[in-house]
Amino acid sequence: MQNVQKEVYFDNAATTRVFPEAAELVMKMMETDYGNPSSRHIRGMEAENAVKEAGERVAKTLRVKPSEIIFTSGGTEADNMALIGTALKRQKRGRHIISSNIEHAAIYKPLEFLEKQGFEVSFLPVDENGHVSAEQLANAIRPDTILVSIMYVNNEIGAVEPIEELARITKEKNASCYFHTDAIQAYGKYDIRPKKEQIDMLSVSGHKLHGPKGTGFLYLDERVNISPILLGGGQQRDFRSGTENVPGIAGLGLAAELYYKNHAAHVEKMTAIKDRLIDRLSAMEGVRVNSGKGLLSAPQIVSASFSGVRAEVLLHALEEKGIYVSSGSACSSNHPAISGTLRAIGLPKELLDSTLRFSFGLFNEPEDADICADAIAELLPVLRRFTRR
Amino acid sequence: MQNVQKEVYFDNAATTRVFPEAAELVMKMMETDYGNPSSRHIRGMEAENAVKEAGERVAKTLRVKPSEIIFTSGGTEADNMALIGTALKRQKRGRHIISSNIEHAAIYKPLEFLEKQGFEVSFLPVDENGHVSAEQLANAIRPDTILVSIMYVNNEIGAVEPIEELARITKEKNASCYFHTDAIQAYGKYDIRPKKEQIDMLSVSGHKLHGPKGTGFLYLDERVNISPILLGGGQQRDFRSGTENVPGIAGLGLAAELYYKNHAAHVEKMTAIKDRLIDRLSAMEGVRVNSGKGLLSAPQIVSASFSGVRAEVLLHALEEKGIYVSSGSACSSNHPAISGTLRAIGLPKELLDSTLRFSFGLFNEPEDADICADAIAELLPVLRRFTRR
Repeated sequence: MQNVQKEVYFDNAATTRVFPEAAELVMKMMETDYGNPSSRHIRGMEAENAVKEAGERVAKTLRVKPSEIIFTSGGTEADNMALIGTALKRQKRGRHIISSNIEHAAIYKPLEFLEKQGFEVSFLPVDENGHVSAEQLANAIRPDTILVSIMYVNNEIGAVEPIEELARITKEKNASCYFHTDAIQAYGKYDIRPKKEQIDMLSVSGHKLHGPKGTGFLYLDERVNISPILLGGGQQRDFRSGTENVPGIAGLGLAAELYYKNHAAHVEKMTAIKDRLIDRLSAMEGVRVNSGKGLLSAPQIVSASFSGVRAEVLLHALEEKGIYVSSGSACSSNHPAISGTLRAIGLPKELLDSTLRFSFGLFNEPEDADICADAIAELLPVLRRFTRR
Repeated sequence: MQNVQKEVYFDNAATTRVFPEAAELVMKMMETDYGNPSSRHIRGMEAENAVKEAGERVAKTLRVKPSEIIFTSGGTEADNMALIGTALKRQKRGRHIISSNIEHAAIYKPLEFLEKQGFEVSFLPVDENGHVSAEQLANAIRPDTILVSIMYVNNEIGAVEPIEELARITKEKNASCYFHTDAIQAYGKYDIRPKKEQIDMLSVSGHKLHGPKGTGFLYLDERVNISPILLGGGQQRDFRSGTENVPGIAGLGLAAELYYKNHAAHVEKMTAIKDRLIDRLSAMEGVRVNSGKGLLSAPQIVSASFSGVRAEVLLHALEEKGIYVSSGSACSSNHPAISGTLRAIGLPKELLDSTLRFSFGLFNEPEDADICADAIAELLPVLRRFTRR
């Protein structure tokens, strides 16, 4: 028997446990206020009001209008909607799109699809910290560029992109070009102000912020027009058809509100865990930390490479101790392919397959960093002994 | 104060209350087994197993393979996926599609979109009972027809299409043509055997069968290949990217199992309510019932037209008595347009705006039909007195 101590769930960038209050609300909407928002009786009105309230809660966190929030089935749908919806709507104006080479599959897969449909996509490189260069973006923008899509926080190493600067440059070079950001790992962790930052579209996933799975939204500036990608009953001002997932939407709205309540304290707590883990890992021999301390990178993500150890082996050794982490981004199924982000930041080839991601949530405690670091310190020499040179 | 008696929710074709057992399971998956199926530790495995179990539960109800069930965010997404996914995949083979003129917006809106993309769509008419003619379908099929999509049960009047015959004719005339059916109002109410009925694709929505909102699936025969419409992490064998809505999927799987348990009794119960309501309404002066008794139409839907009364007025008068029904299909938001189905069956123009839909679920009791009929009998003469001739 393994001596299992306190469980440490350090895979919050993959998914999170739902806030109890949000789960309770979901339950209530399933069993009591179960109407269809399109129904014209009181059961429908109640459901419609719940969707409206969720929209207000989310809009408040971004300082935007509730009508600018389009609820989706998750981050992937929001990303697909922003990219394909823009392409469908604006293809007569131009067929050039700019993105980066460290985006999530929910961005680069739709972009690959659009390339096959005759669009041209420029994928910008990043530096060793995972940052897109404003200058390179400026050089890439053309008169026929209809969309720039750069993620806010990278999901594998936590790099924070200079979104406000990138959006500003986009607008300076081509005022009619839309700026989209995949903010799936950023929302909740940063005070995002789309209006001030000139973000036209922003994708969010509910289950990354202690909200329900199967929920998300696209912030869509009211001056921006895209085509819907799911067509039907015309719900959500015709931008996203399908009966609203009222329980999920209500749960997402509450989770967003709870995450942004005591926001500074939440971020501080995660940053403390991050910094503690980075300090401990940096002190170990043959460990390279790919994420920055403090404000240099996102509060909830630490990527680290362990020379001479296969990520998968260390992951399962930690699992036996009740510590749950991720190899690669863990957001894509059955594709344990080598990460594009790690390659893009120039990580030495021999470390690509030796990298783990530790990611934190509001249910973690500072001591979790030590439990995890202690376990790694104990495991590393043992595992290295069994690794072929 | 109105004298409100027992509440009667007769809007189950719009949406249903979630089975308590399914709601409990959703709750458990949100709070305890909250992992990401793509994560490679035990929390991920648990989640993956829950999705797998749901797939098995659903597959069993249709006698198909679990790998043929693609979970979606609902019926609308399943319909869009079947239509647009087929069009994307097969456009080189042909660009002709056949459907009917009584389909739900989740079918005809994507078809209108495809028409704009250069596809040709033939919309078959229906007879006065809402039935598509096999002969007309046979005449419409061409060598370049890539898809026939006919709904299983109409959502407004409950007409049951001769799906097995229509699919057989499709295959006889063009063996490579796919046959899709929107079974959103049929699944749970009928024993559907896609393999026997030669259905290649079939769309289902979870919240119409006491499952959670934001869930659904597309049955996709293993010999059939379509393009995904949501691209990203490659979940569900690359047919539908996005972190699986594990709680919702688990809830849907259980709801499907519960709905098909004691299936005959469930159908018998709804049929009894339907027949009772039809008997009562048929006996009233100036009431035309647009749905058939017994097996002639779906067990859960009664459409009736009330001459000399506006549907909206009767709906709200019933609402004041705690009886919740629907005008039109109530599946589309802010589009109180005159129903295409009612026009298609040749309902006299003056009745189009005087038609209500009563729809039943497993939480209804036979007496509900009488409560509803009594209320209508009481209200009709009063409301007619106030209606302009």
